[in-house]
Amino acid sequence: MTQLKRALAGEITPEMQKVAFQEKIEAEKIRDLVARGLAVIPANKNHRHLSPVGIGQGLRTKVNANLGTSPTFPDWKNEIEKLKISLSCAVDAVMDLSTGGDIQTCRREIIAQSPVPVGTVPIYEAAVKAREDSRAVVEMTPDELFAVIAEQAAQGVDFITVHCGVTRRIVEKLKNRPRVLGIVSRGGSMTAGWILHNRKENPLYEQFDRLLGICLAHDVTLSLGDGLRPGCLDDATDAAQIEELQVLGELVQRSRAAGVQVMVEGPGHVPFDQIAANVVLQKRLCHGAPFYVLGPLVTDVAPGYDHIAAAIGGTAAAAAGADFLCYVTPAEHLGLPTADDVREGIMASRVAAHAADIVKGSAYIRERDSAMAVARRDLDWPAQIKLALDPQKAQEVRQDRNPDEQEVCSMCGEFCAIDMVNKYLHRQDD
Amino acid sequence: MTQLKRALAGEITPEMQKVAFQEKIEAEKIRDLVARGLAVIPANKNHRHLSPVGIGQGLRTKVNANLGTSPTFPDWKNEIEKLKISLSCAVDAVMDLSTGGDIQTCRREIIAQSPVPVGTVPIYEAAVKAREDSRAVVEMTPDELFAVIAEQAAQGVDFITVHCGVTRRIVEKLKNRPRVLGIVSRGGSMTAGWILHNRKENPLYEQFDRLLGICLAHDVTLSLGDGLRPGCLDDATDAAQIEELQVLGELVQRSRAAGVQVMVEGPGHVPFDQIAANVVLQKRLCHGAPFYVLGPLVTDVAPGYDHIAAAIGGTAAAAAGADFLCYVTPAEHLGLPTADDVREGIMASRVAAHAADIVKGSAYIRERDSAMAVARRDLDWPAQIKLALDPQKAQEVRQDRNPDEQEVCSMCGEFCAIDMVNKYLHRQDD
Repeated sequence: MTQLKRALAGEITPEMQKVAFQEKIEAEKIRDLVARGLAVIPANKNHRHLSPVGIGQGLRTKVNANLGTSPTFPDWKNEIEKLKISLSCAVDAVMDLSTGGDIQTCRREIIAQSPVPVGTVPIYEAAVKAREDSRAVVEMTPDELFAVIAEQAAQGVDFITVHCGVTRRIVEKLKNRPRVLGIVSRGGSMTAGWILHNRKENPLYEQFDRLLGICLAHDVTLSLGDGLRPGCLDDATDAAQIEELQVLGELVQRSRAAGVQVMVEGPGHVPFDQIAANVVLQKRLCHGAPFYVLGPLVTDVAPGYDHIAAAIGGTAAAAAGADFLCYVTPAEHLGLPTADDVREGIMASRVAAHAADIVKGSAYIRERDSAMAVARRDLDWPAQIKLALDPQKAQEVRQDRNPDEQEVCSMCGEFCAIDMVNKYLHRQDD
Repeated sequence: MTQLKRALAGEITPEMQKVAFQEKIEAEKIRDLVARGLAVIPANKNHRHLSPVGIGQGLRTKVNANLGTSPTFPDWKNEIEKLKISLSCAVDAVMDLSTGGDIQTCRREIIAQSPVPVGTVPIYEAAVKAREDSRAVVEMTPDELFAVIAEQAAQGVDFITVHCGVTRRIVEKLKNRPRVLGIVSRGGSMTAGWILHNRKENPLYEQFDRLLGICLAHDVTLSLGDGLRPGCLDDATDAAQIEELQVLGELVQRSRAAGVQVMVEGPGHVPFDQIAANVVLQKRLCHGAPFYVLGPLVTDVAPGYDHIAAAIGGTAAAAAGADFLCYVTPAEHLGLPTADDVREGIMASRVAAHAADIVKGSAYIRERDSAMAVARRDLDWPAQIKLALDPQKAQEVRQDRNPDEQEVCSMCGEFCAIDMVNKYLHRQDD
């Protein structure tokens, strides 16, 4: 029985109760959102020590960090280090995208050590296995791919990205309707390559019910990948992207009908003024399914600063209704992120998510900003540090830049505006 | 003769020609924008070696970096170091906000070494002089303040922030209409303190024509400060802020009538969904005057990451029509920025400005993004580095994270989507 099936049966699960407590929302409201598919609680029955997280309409915007080895950096211990940093940065979910070294151990360790939901992209492991057999990625068989999915589901993976919407029809069209950057989704490109090489339909689309069966058994949440997400501003919101989104909308309905929780992934690289439209379109075509965006990046020319480009796009997306932000790190487009990059990426996404939540309506979110304003008025530094999204960083900068240990700060010193106002404006009120 | 007067007389000045060349716009169009006050070219006749910059409607969004000593960090040589870094980051303007040490030398050196326009907030120097005389800041005399303005104008300052809109009436109202954070503008708080202490009208408002006379003599552009800008989300877009904006709108008309170039400063701390409204209101109430925003910051709880909060707000503001972004550094609310903070702050603002310019309409801006997309498709790394907003940073990350010197990058290695697409999708097209 999945969270969705139990919600439809009228049951308020312990997971729903925990989510309700975190979100300061009544548990019955959470049950209703899950029942209608407007929210998901990725919670694999085999993921021990999971603190369940709700993703969807009316809930706090969540942040995901991508972890995982690569062929160049295959040491899984580095990724456990990044997991710890991610958790210390209050990340809401992580994905293990490993493609190098001992990926089985890496995934097992991440699941074992992560209290937040863990996602994967199973086709990566299938691709690695094909290569280990000295075959091309596109020579993997559908049975091999489904075996990987079943094994990962049994290991406790809470949500999986599957590029079911990259259909043969769309890939054939793409050949005659060129984009600048074709396909930039790794899983999407493997799927398209497989379709073209084998001249067959995408097995994850063709055998979608088989996929649903695996998810049902362990309550794995589907994250329908956007294999055709734009990889540059010039490809944004084009026919290929929207056609895939329509397919995903149909698969959302089939998933819900089967009792499988489902969310939908989105772009990508999108000009600032197209972001809200992308969210509206996804919410309509996908029947209100939770929307998980990668960025979006509002420019193509910010390598080294793509966490900032993503924070800008992420705020615009979440303010328009996106529910889940996949972080982007300063290393995006350049290489695998370091631990520092992971920290920077998460914090940038958390700023974006919080800025959007302030305008999304949950009153309790904004109480923190109101308290910070009061702490600043009172020059109450311990309170300012405590209320900061990253108290450690705020404390470090404050200490480093305040050698005289003044009550004010080193930007204005005795010319502090707040000091001046407290002296002449507020005291005259008393 | 100011740029405005010459524009009104139908003259296309060398400064207008240079701006036209940079902006890829006809010189006559620039002259028309300057004549109508929709754009300014801050260019003090005494600022030698200035490369003029246009700020306003239809022009590229510009970025300012605040420099300057403080009582805690009085060494002006550090600020010259920050100026050099700012120029290497392609900043469009700098402000010298010095309040510590030898502020005369600091300003002279910044003007001498800066090819970009230099702004100041003259009341700071007047405040420092009062303190040097062992008087309170609020004991400065109007004549002392005007003497500082005249001296700075003669030294070649291109634009000055003056808090003319902090009138006695508004300050009195503020006593009975409390805000959480009263006044957070340093110059605004000094002005309000002066008004309350002396029980007199703001001299910069009362003797506005005297101010215009100084500006006329050297073609100093007025930047009408928003002394009542909100210092927290809870104070945003309130009656005090809007009332000051109405006063500034009247002063814009008086400046233009006198032939003095003028722009208007804006908030501050503003929830994401109020930013566009703030820009629309400023443009209407201030008759299309160029809008210079500080941030805006979309949350109060991001100390250590306020450059990101400002980049989010800055993009929203500039996309809605703001023309000039004042950077915010990671040290904001915590202390005087280091040289590294200055670099981070400028780059975050440049990402924001560029993201907004992409949707503002100048076609040539977006060509860079289009070229980057092609460079990524072709895995052309030298082109990718060259097209990056910060080529040095991009190159450093690329080198650091690519020990094998692969054609692909270390995130995906042999599982590179672009490689896959080039192999299966594009080659089948040939």
